[in-house]
Amino acid sequence: MIRVGIVGATGYAGGELVRILMGHKEVEIKWYGSRSYIDKEYAAVYQNMFQIVDDICKDDNLKEMAKLVDVIFTATPQGFLAGLLDEEILSQVKVIDLSADFRIKDVATYEKWYGIEHKAPQFIEEAVYGLCEINREKIKEARLIANPGCYPTCSFLSIYPLAKAGVIDMSTVIIDAKSGTSGAGRGAKVNNLYCEVNENIKAYGVASHRHTPEIEEQLGYASGEEVVLNFTPHLVPMNRGILITAYATLKKKADGTSYNKEEIRAFYEEAYKDERFVRFLPEGSCPETKWVEGSNYVDVNVVVDERTNRVIMMGAMDNLVKGAAGQAVQNMNIMCGLPEDTGLQLVPMFP
Amino acid sequence: MIRVGIVGATGYAGGELVRILMGHKEVEIKWYGSRSYIDKEYAAVYQNMFQIVDDICKDDNLKEMAKLVDVIFTATPQGFLAGLLDEEILSQVKVIDLSADFRIKDVATYEKWYGIEHKAPQFIEEAVYGLCEINREKIKEARLIANPGCYPTCSFLSIYPLAKAGVIDMSTVIIDAKSGTSGAGRGAKVNNLYCEVNENIKAYGVASHRHTPEIEEQLGYASGEEVVLNFTPHLVPMNRGILITAYATLKKKADGTSYNKEEIRAFYEEAYKDERFVRFLPEGSCPETKWVEGSNYVDVNVVVDERTNRVIMMGAMDNLVKGAAGQAVQNMNIMCGLPEDTGLQLVPMFP
Amino acid sequence: MIRVGIVGATGYAGGELVRILMGHKEVEIKWYGSRSYIDKEYAAVYQNMFQIVDDICKDDNLKEMAKLVDVIFTATPQGFLAGLLDEEILSQVKVIDLSADFRIKDVATYEKWYGIEHKAPQFIEEAVYGLCEINREKIKEARLIANPGCYPTCSFLSIYPLAKAGVIDMSTVIIDAKSGTSGAGRGAKVNNLYCEVNENIKAYGVASHRHTPEIEEQLGYASGEEVVLNFTPHLVPMNRGILITAYATLKKKADGTSYNKEEIRAFYEEAYKDERFVRFLPEGSCPETKWVEGSNYVDVNVVVDERTNRVIMMGAMDNLVKGAAGQAVQNMNIMCGLPEDTGLQLVPMFP
Amino acid sequence: MIRVGIVGATGYAGGELVRILMGHKEVEIKWYGSRSYIDKEYAAVYQNMFQIVDDICKDDNLKEMAKLVDVIFTATPQGFLAGLLDEEILSQVKVIDLSADFRIKDVATYEKWYGIEHKAPQFIEEAVYGLCEINREKIKEARLIANPGCYPTCSFLSIYPLAKAGVIDMSTVIIDAKSGTSGAGRGAKVNNLYCEVNENIKAYGVASHRHTPEIEEQLGYASGEEVVLNFTPHLVPMNRGILITAYATLKKKADGTSYNKEEIRAFYEEAYKDERFVRFLPEGSCPETKWVEGSNYVDVNVVVDERTNRVIMMGAMDNLVKGAAGQAVQNMNIMCGLPEDTGLQLVPMFP
Repeated sequence: MIRVGIVGATGYAGGELVRILMGHKEVEIKWYGSRSYIDKEYAAVYQNMFQIVDDICKDDNLKEMAKLVDVIFTATPQGFLAGLLDEEILSQVKVIDLSADFRIKDVATYEKWYGIEHKAPQFIEEAVYGLCEINREKIKEARLIANPGCYPTCSFLSIYPLAKAGVIDMSTVIIDAKSGTSGAGRGAKVNNLYCEVNENIKAYGVASHRHTPEIEEQLGYASGEEVVLNFTPHLVPMNRGILITAYATLKKKADGTSYNKEEIRAFYEEAYKDERFVRFLPEGSCPETKWVEGSNYVDVNVVVDERTNRVIMMGAMDNLVKGAAGQAVQNMNIMCGLPEDTGLQLVPMFP
Repeated sequence: MIRVGIVGATGYAGGELVRILMGHKEVEIKWYGSRSYIDKEYAAVYQNMFQIVDDICKDDNLKEMAKLVDVIFTATPQGFLAGLLDEEILSQVKVIDLSADFRIKDVATYEKWYGIEHKAPQFIEEAVYGLCEINREKIKEARLIANPGCYPTCSFLSIYPLAKAGVIDMSTVIIDAKSGTSGAGRGAKVNNLYCEVNENIKAYGVASHRHTPEIEEQLGYASGEEVVLNFTPHLVPMNRGILITAYATLKKKADGTSYNKEEIRAFYEEAYKDERFVRFLPEGSCPETKWVEGSNYVDVNVVVDERTNRVIMMGAMDNLVKGAAGQAVQNMNIMCGLPEDTGLQLVPMFP
Repeated sequence: MIRVGIVGATGYAGGELVRILMGHKEVEIKWYGSRSYIDKEYAAVYQNMFQIVDDICKDDNLKEMAKLVDVIFTATPQGFLAGLLDEEILSQVKVIDLSADFRIKDVATYEKWYGIEHKAPQFIEEAVYGLCEINREKIKEARLIANPGCYPTCSFLSIYPLAKAGVIDMSTVIIDAKSGTSGAGRGAKVNNLYCEVNENIKAYGVASHRHTPEIEEQLGYASGEEVVLNFTPHLVPMNRGILITAYATLKKKADGTSYNKEEIRAFYEEAYKDERFVRFLPEGSCPETKWVEGSNYVDVNVVVDERTNRVIMMGAMDNLVKGAAGQAVQNMNIMCGLPEDTGLQLVPMFP
Repeated sequence: MIRVGIVGATGYAGGELVRILMGHKEVEIKWYGSRSYIDKEYAAVYQNMFQIVDDICKDDNLKEMAKLVDVIFTATPQGFLAGLLDEEILSQVKVIDLSADFRIKDVATYEKWYGIEHKAPQFIEEAVYGLCEINREKIKEARLIANPGCYPTCSFLSIYPLAKAGVIDMSTVIIDAKSGTSGAGRGAKVNNLYCEVNENIKAYGVASHRHTPEIEEQLGYASGEEVVLNFTPHLVPMNRGILITAYATLKKKADGTSYNKEEIRAFYEEAYKDERFVRFLPEGSCPETKWVEGSNYVDVNVVVDERTNRVIMMGAMDNLVKGAAGQAVQNMNIMCGLPEDTGLQLVPMFP
């Protein structure tokens, strides 16, 4: 049995971790950390867990937790983990961080986009970016995982095959993203009230969203060149789901001709043919968030527009599963030598 | 392995059966019946099943199916199963019928409320009403299960403890029910279009809904008296979920005094203390459909109003799970001697 | 021109007042009161008003406002107006209070259900309960209007014709109410976040909601007897709309026979035949909140259930219009001698 | 009084026309055309119109209608008007066509994208594209108006100031559009059922949507060059609203330097400073569909991203108002010499 502690267990991502781990046969949750609800029954905060979870919420004492568990998940605000992490903790437990603290290798970039000082830069180099499909081998050996952001996961996996193949002009990449409201967290803010979100759609963080450098960094590794792109997130009136619609101009082939649809599709097939959680859809089928809800799948597809010589790359994902808790569990499975889909054989729920 | 055939596999209840059975380790689906989509890939109809279900849809040949499988689920319109069922089929397979054909013992009542002739009345007596919490022993021996309606399941379980205890005046029972839209099925009707349902609520079938006699019959068995009640369903802008708010006047105790809150709660505690799927909530907590979504739970609670001497009995349930496919699987488990919650350890999804 | 001041102009009801008054040709808003947004542009709080309202928000100084305007609307929390009102103000302006402060004639009842001390009981007797269809004549002469609550307005108008006719047993009245989320106000609370409300329905305030005594008092006047009833509100995932489903047992006629459908419908027809804003629907048609959205209409209908000898009375209304701001304007029109529907000729918006 | 006939009065756009015209003091609707509901009361189809509209639905006889009315609105499927229009009709009445039949000047382009033969190409040249803000003068003299599509209206007005100013590279324009579900019409299709749309988002018509050539043609006129672009619509779980997020690369100025934010904003300010229905929002404020719901406004804004040298141009609009019925009324007003906002002083409804 893997003993697990969760810091931030009463946020939406933390709650989803609990939901998933309840169905994971190799895991026992030993610590439900929630600064806001200390000593309150977890099932009183998340009533879906009534008669399923009997524990009470505890504080966020990483040091003490590290002695009791094998894996710590931190589903916390930016800066939390960086402010507390030290070698002693890392020598005792594996840490999977769902915040952005260790996702970006360049400290200056992190500090610029997040507007806070990084308190533990010494661990950035060691941290492995936990995009399982890409960094599987490194994750096996890691002590510290930077679990990817929701937008970056879906954006990256939608674009990756063509970035890696070198067939798109990376300077033309534009990512138009749409997210359900759980991505905004469980904080009580007027902007996230039902009446403000329902029957409404808007862009936000235009040209300034903090997931931008994370996407650029990862696509940079994939393409082998520095990437600067546009990323525009939108808030959609639904609970769960992220949809990515990404655009890029196709390069010409060496012989001066254009890539055709079959060639483009072949890059996706090759990239994902052995992946358990990335489903490359049949031609003509557009990803829909509802088809992956509650599961760890990312559905992707691509359309070649000969009129404009662009590709439209699409991806759909449940932001709380593959975009947060599911990928965190996938990382844990890899780190612990378990089959990668243990506890993650979640069938999408429709309708 | 239990081999299973599903008739009506592409309706919402049929789709939910597939979702649940994909996680049931003892079951193999051998036949996806769907008259509308014969020869089409099942995963092309329900894209959530892409790379999970590889089969194609077949027709509704019960006779042929009966030779290939151990259990048949019929998620079909009223009258379908009654029009085809015969002794030959029943001698070969267990049949779990999600329609209303065998729920009501009195043929005249069925024909009056449903407006169709019953074509197989000879099996009504044998059929077991598959409300697992009540008829568990009979279900073990049954060949034919009448899987309860969604509204009746939630209504009955909300009221049952007090009906059985004989502490409410059954002539005062009023059930005000609210359902998500998946209960209306997947047929293309203007009334169920997004724009007609969204941002709207209405009653329908007032004093005439066909689940009324089913509820009355079952509450009649529980209370030992004939029951005539009001049942008013409402359509709510959400996909899943049924909420029951039921009212009844309390009888006086033998000594002329009133039942107090503790006594009333004790009836619920007693009735459900060993039940895996009925959660009697703590005092002061109202059932919410979101807390049971995707799971086989029914959450119930009761409030005693001393001002009016009435009880307000509440229940929340996922109409597609405990209200349809989940209960059908629960019935199958009981019939096949499996632990009752096999494949049903679904943790409610929130948010 | 009627000069108007609004206290609480940035709540949902206050915002709706502004929306309606922008289309009222006889009104000029002179004061946008909002303690939370003093000195901020009103259109920066409610961006729908960009280029429509140019004013900035001011504080809540009733005394100063009373010198500048003819009518003050207070869309404020309970206790606010009672804490500030005095004879000097009332001698200068008409006051229409959208809070509960002056709705209930019995101070003890108010203080018990609202849990606060009433600071201005001397004005309770004078205050006119602003249910226009009932108290039209008194409203004409009033200085102080207690604008009815949203639930009470819809509940009362759904039941009134039969209560007044004396044909229902008032001790059997049960009101099951469903409301959109704007009724919960614009305060930042976790319970009202999009992800908590969406895809969910629940009862709340069971047997304890503060609109109960208000409904009982008004139905008491209509029926000429003391009324004690059950009122259960539910939160529905939609922005606007209240739906009432009310139940009562029919009395027998003097000759011992039962009232039939035609007789029952005649009471409604008689009660509402001259009413501009109450629409008694054709037989067989159930009120739906979407059909009145954005308008000042209340749609009502009634079903007679011979099986149970009960009537099911239904009403649908926009909680922010007829349930708050619209009725407040209707009251202002009556007080100021304008045609009752001035500025209220709003056509419901569908879809 | 302007006498009006509506063909297709029971579709969503037709219903919205009725709603708007009910508040238009200079208009009388003489003909509610609806092939599907002939002889049925209009208010029985759209119950919001109960006691507001007393007429019954009639057939689609354009010839007869032309004798009785001054203006005909056709809110009909593609091909309907082109199949019936002739000189006799046009000599009697003004026609405002909400379909695409006369929007595209090149017949071959129309026939290619719409897949049907154009039956009345002789009127294409005469037809005026009814984008009021651009073609106001021509509309005054027109007999036949091609009322713009919903996506083209919002796309065009979002991009127009920069296209006209010649400061963006038109070959880089990408339009990512999001629409509420009323845009899909009132036809009974499984894809538009509540349960299929709710809690879901998807792209559709990728690289093939029929509004593409309409947008390209109009932006071509504005920029003075042929335009080929990407347009990707998405279906959003809401009733009303279109949001446009458009991207383009900025050209350099003559002196080789880049345009700054102030210069870019000045183009918008100049273009829309006198427009009643286009609101150029303050810097930093993103358009939201909820802020324009029910009104004829288009809210637009622009962000300059110095990192990528691109502009992100955004627009929000109610697809049934400015995107269909509202713009049609605006066109009628201009054609009939009325103030352009007659009957269109609709204040957006929030929430």
